[in-house]
Amino acid sequence: MNLGDVAKKINGKVEGDSSIDITGVSSIEIAKKGHITFAKGKKFLEKLKKSKASAVLVETKEEISMSQIISSNPELAFARLLDYFHPEPRPKPEIHSSVVLGLNVKLGNRVALSPFVSIGDNVRIGDDVVVYSGSVIGDNCELGKSTLIHANVTLYRNTIIGSSVTIHAGAVIGSDGFGYTADDKGRHIKINQIGNVVIEDNVEIGANSCVDRAATGTTLIKKGTKIDNLVQIAHNCTIGENCILVAQVGIAGSCNLGRHVVLAGQAGLSDHVTVGDNVTLAAKSAALRDIKDNSVYGGIPALPLNIWKRSVAVFAKLPDLSRKIRDLENRLNNIEKKNIDQ
Amino acid sequence: MNLGDVAKKINGKVEGDSSIDITGVSSIEIAKKGHITFAKGKKFLEKLKKSKASAVLVETKEEISMSQIISSNPELAFARLLDYFHPEPRPKPEIHSSVVLGLNVKLGNRVALSPFVSIGDNVRIGDDVVVYSGSVIGDNCELGKSTLIHANVTLYRNTIIGSSVTIHAGAVIGSDGFGYTADDKGRHIKINQIGNVVIEDNVEIGANSCVDRAATGTTLIKKGTKIDNLVQIAHNCTIGENCILVAQVGIAGSCNLGRHVVLAGQAGLSDHVTVGDNVTLAAKSAALRDIKDNSVYGGIPALPLNIWKRSVAVFAKLPDLSRKIRDLENRLNNIEKKNIDQ
Amino acid sequence: MNLGDVAKKINGKVEGDSSIDITGVSSIEIAKKGHITFAKGKKFLEKLKKSKASAVLVETKEEISMSQIISSNPELAFARLLDYFHPEPRPKPEIHSSVVLGLNVKLGNRVALSPFVSIGDNVRIGDDVVVYSGSVIGDNCELGKSTLIHANVTLYRNTIIGSSVTIHAGAVIGSDGFGYTADDKGRHIKINQIGNVVIEDNVEIGANSCVDRAATGTTLIKKGTKIDNLVQIAHNCTIGENCILVAQVGIAGSCNLGRHVVLAGQAGLSDHVTVGDNVTLAAKSAALRDIKDNSVYGGIPALPLNIWKRSVAVFAKLPDLSRKIRDLENRLNNIEKKNIDQ
Repeated sequence: MNLGDVAKKINGKVEGDSSIDITGVSSIEIAKKGHITFAKGKKFLEKLKKSKASAVLVETKEEISMSQIISSNPELAFARLLDYFHPEPRPKPEIHSSVVLGLNVKLGNRVALSPFVSIGDNVRIGDDVVVYSGSVIGDNCELGKSTLIHANVTLYRNTIIGSSVTIHAGAVIGSDGFGYTADDKGRHIKINQIGNVVIEDNVEIGANSCVDRAATGTTLIKKGTKIDNLVQIAHNCTIGENCILVAQVGIAGSCNLGRHVVLAGQAGLSDHVTVGDNVTLAAKSAALRDIKDNSVYGGIPALPLNIWKRSVAVFAKLPDLSRKIRDLENRLNNIEKKNIDQ
Repeated sequence: MNLGDVAKKINGKVEGDSSIDITGVSSIEIAKKGHITFAKGKKFLEKLKKSKASAVLVETKEEISMSQIISSNPELAFARLLDYFHPEPRPKPEIHSSVVLGLNVKLGNRVALSPFVSIGDNVRIGDDVVVYSGSVIGDNCELGKSTLIHANVTLYRNTIIGSSVTIHAGAVIGSDGFGYTADDKGRHIKINQIGNVVIEDNVEIGANSCVDRAATGTTLIKKGTKIDNLVQIAHNCTIGENCILVAQVGIAGSCNLGRHVVLAGQAGLSDHVTVGDNVTLAAKSAALRDIKDNSVYGGIPALPLNIWKRSVAVFAKLPDLSRKIRDLENRLNNIEKKNIDQ
Repeated sequence: MNLGDVAKKINGKVEGDSSIDITGVSSIEIAKKGHITFAKGKKFLEKLKKSKASAVLVETKEEISMSQIISSNPELAFARLLDYFHPEPRPKPEIHSSVVLGLNVKLGNRVALSPFVSIGDNVRIGDDVVVYSGSVIGDNCELGKSTLIHANVTLYRNTIIGSSVTIHAGAVIGSDGFGYTADDKGRHIKINQIGNVVIEDNVEIGANSCVDRAATGTTLIKKGTKIDNLVQIAHNCTIGENCILVAQVGIAGSCNLGRHVVLAGQAGLSDHVTVGDNVTLAAKSAALRDIKDNSVYGGIPALPLNIWKRSVAVFAKLPDLSRKIRDLENRLNNIEKKNIDQ
């Protein structure tokens, strides 16, 4: 495909030679001849000079010799071209002979079930679904069309998954919520968890992440939300649309997240915390209370991020402050003593 | 079953119509006609007014129109009724044709082994055990009666599991402890881990949690302890009876926990830490030293929780304190200068 | 094997009876007759008196009745003897009949593939490799000789693993890096991750840990590095030689670690952080900025450890400091008032 055709695919405008052949997409550092890359900011424009790429996506025309495509959102254009030139490979749409299907399973068209996949009773699988090796789909689960389940995933019974969802290897969806009560001897008695998990369209869930099913009702992940690896979502949470939960985040039971919430790596939420829309929680923070829309928090417990940053700056000087206070005390003692002596 | 019969099952007392038909158990919010629910505290009594439930478990008689069962421990009664009306479903007691059994395996009565389960040599499996698809039971393991192993679990060799234990999907029990020494070139040389893991009766272990086997000897989880998802327990730890380890807790090697210890989410323990009975460690805390019986700690490093809370309250005002100290210094300078001038 | 022969294996020197029979290796506490153990420091020498071991590895001759082997590095000698007397058991070198092999798979000599292993197309497996039950090896992967893949591991396509590597159960290598961009409606659009993961020789990766493949290029774990359970390594990271990453560590994208870096349990790194050689980061710390060679850091955000320790000591006294400042203010007010009154 030549550069002109590439530009058309993403509604961009060529500056330079439209006829050059584009064969792939890559980052600046490792791009080869025939690749188109993407640059934003002076640092990357500097790197472009050494790049072997044949063309570059930019926001505004740059004074460089390399052919350019001007795009109003070059990073998005880059993502779209990556998907065009290097799409996620999919296995052939066939059911491997080793697959075990339960009773009353409904399979859509072009479904691919890899070796050693186990499908429970009453499962419904949409068109173009892929389930990789070793994954286990419990009774009464539903997988919407074009959903991709990687290897060794476990879906407990009654899990409902929308379309174009990706679940990465080792993830566990629908495991028992962590709910107990105590008997008169202080022993923990299990509260059976009879709810389920619902995952809406276009959600992605990372490797070895866990989403527990609700005690009663539903643990809900709304559409477009992206969840990284090793994340824990406890029972009865609702995660809003288009959230980003970075690796090793932990969300305790019955939390409620708005839209476009970003929880950075290893952040945590106490149970029953409500987080508004467009909230960002810094890495390693702990939100113990509700957080309002459009705010940025950090720290343990979480504070507005600017307050946290200022306090943290003083924290490193605490020994110095402590010394100053002792010094002030001594000087005051002297003055008071002198005043009395006078 | 009518309400009178339900009351008998849990040694409760009906206030209202004993003859109404009870068909299920649910939370207040989503209960339907025929359901019995559970209420504790004014907030829930308020919610009851809007609930469609037919009856409610309460501790003392309430002035409401709904039929009630009075129970000394209504939450426990609720758990017992949930288990009666909505028991954990179990697969048929059969060995799927795909299951691979090692040499000298002893199977109890009514064992269910799902597709693609792999059982090593010399494994002993008790009556009524269930092992779901894709789980791998290493050589010389033992599973006590009524134990439930969910899908894609891995038990390394020599793991001993008691009765009525539940291990959730993806959990790994008995993996190598993280033990190395260094050679003269600073390379890490593995110390083979030749111990094992023992899990006593009525323990529950969450999805994708890991328990390493001992270097020599045994990593031990005592009876009644409940462990949430993504928890790490390192080699040679002993976890006492009836502990609660919430999601993403990490316990380093050779720690020793007493009974009824609660480690809240994402808390961590340094190696060789001993924690007494009835200790609670707050979420995200780090216990670097031993903690005595009956105490509540929090923070990094962990402090008695009341101290931590007070310090944290001041932390948010550190910039202010810093300013005050500068102000005090200036004022003292002025006074001292004046005193000298006099 | 007698004690004299044992000493020869590790270039040690016997003090005592060379003829006694050694049948195993164990820790002091649980050693039995016939075992050799290892002692370092007074505490362990004290424990030796009660040990049933027949011999002990020590650094210098001790005044004890037990037979000794003097070794310049007794812990290393202990590790080598453990490996000799209690080697990691390996399954028979055979391909189980249930194993599914893709097209164009190259298998070395003496390879063991356990039940329900799935191997993709174009995979190359070296001599003496073991893959345990339920593991899934994606297309185009390579496993170097003597590498050991435990049960239920998933390797995504194109993962390259060196020789003598151990990957523990449930680990996921090569999953999609967590990379998105936004469209004009604020929806997250996936940036396809077209790189891979390379793991060099003698690396060990713990149970349920995750290593994401690079966006473009390679996520690289260099030789001799040891990674514990539930660790997250994001896309495009480079982890240097002989590092130690303890359980639940999280490393964000594009980080660069030098050699001999130690990240203690639950520590985290922000994206694009460069950490020099011989750096240690304390448990639960968060490095948000680059760290130079040969330094020890701790805290959130990470400070030089001695500064962090001193600040933490003051932190516990913050309420006291706050009170002292109020007191100083009052006293100064009094003095200033008096000065004005005069």
